[in-house]
Amino acid sequence: MTGNVIVGQSGGPTAVINSSLAGVFKTAKDRGAKKVYGMIHGIKGLLDGEYVDLSNKIQTDIDIDLLKRTPSSFLGSCRYKLPEVEGNEATYTKIFEKLNELEIQYFFYIGGNDSMDTIKKLSDYGKSINSDIKFMGVPKTIDNDLAVTDHTPGFGSAAKYIASTMKEIIRDGLVYDYPTITIVEIMGRNAGWLTAAAALAKGEDCEGVDMIYLPEKVFDIDQFMNHVKAVSTKGRSMVIAISEGIKVADGRYVFELSDHVEFVDAFGHKQLAGSAKFLANKIGSELGIKTRAVELSTMQRCAGHMTSRTDITEAFNVGGAAVKAAFEGESGRVVVLKRISDDPYMCITETHDVHDIANIEKKVPLEWITDDDYVTDELIRYIRPLIQAELSPIMVDGLPRHLNVNM
Amino acid sequence: MTGNVIVGQSGGPTAVINSSLAGVFKTAKDRGAKKVYGMIHGIKGLLDGEYVDLSNKIQTDIDIDLLKRTPSSFLGSCRYKLPEVEGNEATYTKIFEKLNELEIQYFFYIGGNDSMDTIKKLSDYGKSINSDIKFMGVPKTIDNDLAVTDHTPGFGSAAKYIASTMKEIIRDGLVYDYPTITIVEIMGRNAGWLTAAAALAKGEDCEGVDMIYLPEKVFDIDQFMNHVKAVSTKGRSMVIAISEGIKVADGRYVFELSDHVEFVDAFGHKQLAGSAKFLANKIGSELGIKTRAVELSTMQRCAGHMTSRTDITEAFNVGGAAVKAAFEGESGRVVVLKRISDDPYMCITETHDVHDIANIEKKVPLEWITDDDYVTDELIRYIRPLIQAELSPIMVDGLPRHLNVNM
Repeated sequence: MTGNVIVGQSGGPTAVINSSLAGVFKTAKDRGAKKVYGMIHGIKGLLDGEYVDLSNKIQTDIDIDLLKRTPSSFLGSCRYKLPEVEGNEATYTKIFEKLNELEIQYFFYIGGNDSMDTIKKLSDYGKSINSDIKFMGVPKTIDNDLAVTDHTPGFGSAAKYIASTMKEIIRDGLVYDYPTITIVEIMGRNAGWLTAAAALAKGEDCEGVDMIYLPEKVFDIDQFMNHVKAVSTKGRSMVIAISEGIKVADGRYVFELSDHVEFVDAFGHKQLAGSAKFLANKIGSELGIKTRAVELSTMQRCAGHMTSRTDITEAFNVGGAAVKAAFEGESGRVVVLKRISDDPYMCITETHDVHDIANIEKKVPLEWITDDDYVTDELIRYIRPLIQAELSPIMVDGLPRHLNVNM
Repeated sequence: MTGNVIVGQSGGPTAVINSSLAGVFKTAKDRGAKKVYGMIHGIKGLLDGEYVDLSNKIQTDIDIDLLKRTPSSFLGSCRYKLPEVEGNEATYTKIFEKLNELEIQYFFYIGGNDSMDTIKKLSDYGKSINSDIKFMGVPKTIDNDLAVTDHTPGFGSAAKYIASTMKEIIRDGLVYDYPTITIVEIMGRNAGWLTAAAALAKGEDCEGVDMIYLPEKVFDIDQFMNHVKAVSTKGRSMVIAISEGIKVADGRYVFELSDHVEFVDAFGHKQLAGSAKFLANKIGSELGIKTRAVELSTMQRCAGHMTSRTDITEAFNVGGAAVKAAFEGESGRVVVLKRISDDPYMCITETHDVHDIANIEKKVPLEWITDDDYVTDELIRYIRPLIQAELSPIMVDGLPRHLNVNM
């Protein structure tokens, strides 16, 4: 071990992204790293000279355990996308100057497919200038839309939160003696994995949701209204799960059928929300049924009080595996999860070329979506192992304790 | 013990209303009740002849423990308000016929101030016809707006969920390197108790929310925008908690300043939602700051996975105390909680005349709201003991298990 380590977090937060940070930090320290730096606000912070010596922030074993339980990006995040090298050499020169200044030999970036683009560009550029800095991607996203890996850390906990909360919303929604319809909007711009997790609510003690709509399939609003009408004329209450990303045949989001304002983020993504409200209003006005629109919003990605132990352990492990691989000389690669068996569930880590992963979205296969507006048992069997077991929050004075960000 | 017992649930669900049902059932059985019936959908169900023998639904000790952890009204709910006796004698005759038919001697109703009106009317009518059926109210509401009682079962768990979730939303909201503003909308039509619980998020490990707006105080939209501007020009991100019930000086809800549709429920209450979205849009368009509106919606009242052990125990106890009082001859009364001490927290049950409680709303005292858009330490000290300790969910296959409603 000669050089130092630097690690950053990027993209939308998850409940377990800090478990990966803990995995990188602890494994690097255990394997003899001199200094482990954290970029503040990802690569953008590095460019601005904002970083910390993580040993000042993570000082004890209990800090490691608190960090694992702290949702959202401990180091701050960014949505900054590195420009192409051609014509922007100055940016790359600056980054490598910073890295050399800090004597960095190992660079880890925890994020989704946009963040893996950063690893790809930096490792490609590094090769071109014969730098021997190793660049490794650590996967993270609640959306589960990363290619190659069986699933992404962050997804299991969000799925567990969604399934648990759906059970509660279903209990709440079916309580009255007149029909009511609750429409729950779930994150996942182009991939329906998270919305599909609503199907896990169904069981011995729960009726489950009535309908599930994923963005992979064109949303037919007439079919939707007919389905609602058919069930509601029997006097039954319903709970329906929709993805924020469902679109009608002409390509517009359902949300865009209303007159709501739109925002666009730094990556050119539209900020979505409001499809549930639009559909609830439509049902209310056209069918005269009492409706409620619920957005799981931020809560579904930061519910540190309700994580999957399976997920949080895998998140830690992918961080550790990235360090191990880099220390053994790998670069330009991403740690991926490979499922060995469904029952009993067994999963290992491997590494894979970042070029096959950056900027690619993995969607729910169409054959896992049924014609009667639900998902197949195969899809449920895929998700179920990922929500298993719990990591209890450390409760202090009645509330889950997090690792203090400011020191 | 000669006669039977009947119990019903009414109004909006809570996470612990079934703990009170468990308290009524278990205490009645333990004290020798022959049959304990449950009205399906409250008094409305009784009128329609819908009830069950609860011994068929709650069969084992583990059923009792599952029931305590099952959110929302196990027996179903209603928002039916009994008419005045005068001119509606037929309704009352019918109810007492049903009660006599089932040989009911003790009648328990779990609900908020609208539901206590049912206890008041039935016990007054009962007296007028010399019935010796005992009528007792069991308090329940997340809103904490019931008179006389120190607080209401259901409030502590909702407050714990809100404070925990605010901590997570704050972590999520402060993650980027540019200012963002998150506005969180919390339930409580006319009383700000629940919104005030957002203040509990602040602590060693959390910056807390920046501003809190309760419905007890007129919402000054100019002052609000100035406050936001003053903080955001320093480049700081903010998280703001507002009650769904905040109103501007002319009496309109903030929500009504937009062109959103309104609903009115059976009690004549407006269905509120959208004030956060309205304010977020206003900040976004006028100040050009990235905003997000979050509604805690149904989740805050049905989060059975995140209850306060203090609350769930008190909920059980008020059910038991109602049975004890009725069996000892009391009627036309409500079980209330009396706080003996803040530190250490000690609280006992008493009973109180329902006429002082029905239809009355207890609001947050104005002196507990500060001029700089926050709440006093006194208010925080009042709420803090109510969120203490946990009752772990019984986890099965990765999800919290509830008592099966359908058998």
